[in-house]
Formats: sequence, C-alpha cells, structure tokens
Amino acid sequence: MSNNQFKNLRKLFEENLNEQLFEQEADIELLKPMMYSLQTGGKRLRPTLLLAVLYIYGSKKIKLGMKTAIALEYIHTYSLIHDDLPAMDNDDLRRGQPTSHKQFDEATAILAGDALLTEAFGLIAEDDQLKPKQRIQLIQELVSASGAHGMVAGQIKDLQSERREISLDELKEIHSKKTGRLFSFSIDAAAIILDLDADVRGELSEFGRHFGLAYQIHNDLKDLTGNQELTGKSGNSDEVNEKNTYPYLLTTKGAVEALADEISQINQIIKKLEKDTGKPFSFLKEFVSYIDVTQLAKELNV
Amino acid sequence: MSNNQFKNLRKLFEENLNEQLFEQEADIELLKPMMYSLQTGGKRLRPTLLLAVLYIYGSKKIKLGMKTAIALEYIHTYSLIHDDLPAMDNDDLRRGQPTSHKQFDEATAILAGDALLTEAFGLIAEDDQLKPKQRIQLIQELVSASGAHGMVAGQIKDLQSERREISLDELKEIHSKKTGRLFSFSIDAAAIILDLDADVRGELSEFGRHFGLAYQIHNDLKDLTGNQELTGKSGNSDEVNEKNTYPYLLTTKGAVEALADEISQINQIIKKLEKDTGKPFSFLKEFVSYIDVTQLAKELNV
Repeated sequence: MSNNQFKNLRKLFEENLNEQLFEQEADIELLKPMMYSLQTGGKRLRPTLLLAVLYIYGSKKIKLGMKTAIALEYIHTYSLIHDDLPAMDNDDLRRGQPTSHKQFDEATAILAGDALLTEAFGLIAEDDQLKPKQRIQLIQELVSASGAHGMVAGQIKDLQSERREISLDELKEIHSKKTGRLFSFSIDAAAIILDLDADVRGELSEFGRHFGLAYQIHNDLKDLTGNQELTGKSGNSDEVNEKNTYPYLLTTKGAVEALADEISQINQIIKKLEKDTGKPFSFLKEFVSYIDVTQLAKELNV
Repeated sequence: MSNNQFKNLRKLFEENLNEQLFEQEADIELLKPMMYSLQTGGKRLRPTLLLAVLYIYGSKKIKLGMKTAIALEYIHTYSLIHDDLPAMDNDDLRRGQPTSHKQFDEATAILAGDALLTEAFGLIAEDDQLKPKQRIQLIQELVSASGAHGMVAGQIKDLQSERREISLDELKEIHSKKTGRLFSFSIDAAAIILDLDADVRGELSEFGRHFGLAYQIHNDLKDLTGNQELTGKSGNSDEVNEKNTYPYLLTTKGAVEALADEISQINQIIKKLEKDTGKPFSFLKEFVSYIDVTQLAKELNV
C-alpha cells in the first residue's frame, strides 16, 4: 500500500460524503451551511484513519465503515463551527476560508452545528449493513468520545484555562479529551465494525492515543514556525493561548523530542500489530508521514 | 386515574432525572450548567406524556421509558439554551430565571447545550432494558424529530421569517417542526417501547400532532393575555415575532375557535383509542386539562 492508496481512500470518502449530502433532504437554508463547513476541505484524517484500518482487513470492508466515517466528520465539523464562534475562539478564518458565522451569521452557525451533531447519530443508527448491536456500540463510543466526558469536556476545560497557566498533566488531559478521544474513536469504530478481539483492540487503542498526542504536539510546533498558509488559521486564538502549549511547557527542544518519541512508539505499535495479526498495518505509517521531525527541528533551530 | 396520578408521574420523572444527573461523572464545570437548565422546572410535558402512555399500559411499563424520557428532556433543554442565546432569541429570562448564558456565559451555554444534545443519544443507547433494535428505532425517531428535518429546521425557518410576514401554512410548518415533532416523539417513543401495532400507532401519532398544535395556539393566545407570570419569559422575542402567530393570522376569535376544534379532535381520538385498545386512554385528557378555552375567550373578549 502506498501514499496513492491513502489519497484514494480520502477521495473515496469525499465522494461518499458528497453523495450523502445530496441525499439529505433538509431545507436548503440549513443544508447550505452544513455543506459549506463539510466541504471546506481539511485533511479528513479522522474518517480516513477509520477507513484505513478497515482497508487493512480487506478492501471490501471499507464500505462497512463509510456511514460511520461520515458521522465522525459531521461531529468534527460541528465542533469546529461552534469552536470558531465569537463567544468561543472568535476565529474569522478556518482553512483559509471565512468561518461559518462569518460566511452566514451566528445563529445559522449555531444551528448548522446542532444539525450536524444530531444527524451524525442518525447516520450510524440507519446503517443497516451493521447489526443493531454494533450500531448501538458505535453510538455509545461516539457519545463517550464527543460528549460531556470527551470533546465537549475538553473544550470547556480549555476555555477555562485560557487566562491561567496550566500544568503539563492538565494540558495532556485537555488535548486527550478535546482531540485525542475523537482520533481514538476512528480506531475503536473500526474495531467494532470488524468485530476484532480484545487484544488487537487494545493495541489499536494505544495507536490512537499516541497518534492523537503526536498530532497535537506537531500542531503546536507548526504554529511556532508561524506558517499561516499551512494551518489556514487567522491566529487570534493562538495569541491568547500561547502559554498552554507543549513547546511552552516542555521547551521547544523538549516538545520536538516528545514528538520524536511519540512517532517512535507509533512505529513500534504498528510493527507489533503487523506481527500479531499478519495484516499489513504498516499502511498506518502514512498517517504520520507528513510529520518530519528532523525538518521541524531545523526550522525551529533546536 | 386522576390529576394526582399525573402529578405523581411528573414527580417520578423528576426524581429519576435527578438520580441520573448525580450518576453523571462529567466535570463539574459542565455538569453545573447542564443541571442548572434541566432543573429550572418547566411542566415536563414531553417526558410526562411519554410516561403517561406507558402507564396506560400498566404501571410496570413506566420504567421502560424512563431513560428515553430523560433523553427527551435533555433535547428539549438543549434547544431552549441555544434558542435563548444572544444570536438567536436573545432572552434574559426563562421560566422566571436567568437564561444559561446570563447565569454563566455564552461559551458555557453553547457547550452545555452541545453536551446535553450528545448525551441524550447516549442515554438511549445504553438502556439495556430495551432491545438493541428498539434503541436504534428510538434514536432514529429522535434524530428525525430534532435534527435537520425536525426541530433545528423549524428553528432556522422561524429565524428567517422574523423580518417578514408569513402564511398560515408556513406558520404551521414552522411550529410542526419546531415544537410538534418533539411532542410526536413522546408518543411515538411509547409506541416503540410498547411494541404497539400500526393502527394504534397511527392514532397515537394523530393525537401527538393535534396536541402539539393545541399547545402552540394556546401559547400564542396566552401571550396575548400578557400574563408574564405564567409564561415566565421576558418577552423580547415576542415583540419581534408578534405578527407570526395564530391570533394574528386567524384573528383572535379564529384562533380561539381553532383551539376549541383541536381540543375536540383530541377528545375524539382519545375516545377511539380507548374503544380500540380497551385501555384507559382518557388519562391523556389530563394533558389538555390546563387549557380552558371558555376562560381564555372571556379574558380576550371574543
């Protein structure tokens, strides 16, 4: 499997997402802002990660996870819309495009987010390729990852930490809830859909956990290089939050080392998964291939 | 069955709701605003309606619907929190108490709403008294009633109609989506939990539809009597919206007549349900007993 196949997986996801949106018979006033935010790109990391694990078990498995992958992107997208609101991070741009409340208005952005959040659960519930019991498990996991014990909890903790300096443990907790849990869901969802046994599930969860952490440290370091083009954000929120980042708490050098360590652990887990299952798990390396620690260290002079 | 039993049902619901909240292990920063809005009273019409239909089939059935009833109240409550936001109806008071964003702040109100919305689906998914298939049906119905084809669609249509006069059909569509669908869910959920056959389900749905309409016309007429104590609202939003009401579109007299007609249809449906099932459906009359059309006509001089 190659980088091309990774791109194909993302393309396949986007095709299915668009199809799904055309099938939605929601009123155009609501469908427009939903589509706007769903279609302003992004790397589609979460759904592609889910589909990639299915692909590792055979290309026929991919379609079993498509609705769940779309649901996951709905949840991720609603969280971006609400996070960008003036009362929250107050961002005008997202991926280089006007945020939802800038493109439409605040009320529309709030409601588009609410609609995406609600419909996400509908997509999983209606997916008759899966057994009712699997759908229930997926919904429970998604609630746990994104609700009052997951993403939303992380978001409120993050907001409340804005005006004070936090500890490394607190930062880890915030990121684990705010972004880590949803990455873990990508992996856990694949395990539920594939009916994998507990051992493999455990290893996969570990992969998800380390992947989420690597993703966040990399983001923080990337922000330091100040490359707006790459992050596509206007940066308002980062100024406020600059102290509560890995580079600030670990030093830049420390954060680069922590990132290198996460990548190395991810590679070890992949090797172990490949050995234990006989499946080509090395494909998952694609998901960290965009992280170039050596290059990053050079750019940041550490 | 009597008015006392109706109150007992509401009391039972509130006890179970409080128990549920104490079991939630969410962070206190999030649990506080969730509890605040859930516990500032209200008539609990939606969950009590669900439980009442179960009660009609035997008091042992009540507990089967408790988690779904709580989920329904979560959804209703999230919608009130978000509707009250400055970008939406901009209400400072709800049921005589400060609205969530006034009591806390806007970001907290948005996130508390998001958490309630998400956790609602979790409550149904985890309810192992019900078969996975029933849980899936309940989730699908709840998504349909509250999402991009239901409540949220009604809300965006409502906001977009604020600055222009709408037709009676449009008003009916807005109310059907914004409030009617969730009342219908109360009834449909009971039918799913009781595994009722299609005929009875159809009649029950009709009851839900007429009940939702009666509820809304009554609300509009009550607003005309200007009794703030009863509605507990500060009234900002009504000023803006005064033209898009049943009394405005039908005349006050016409709206009172329409309300009387809805009540009469509701009573007929109840009679038919009682005859067809042999169950004491007359209990449902309690739900419209607070509507006194004659008194209302007198107060409004029509």
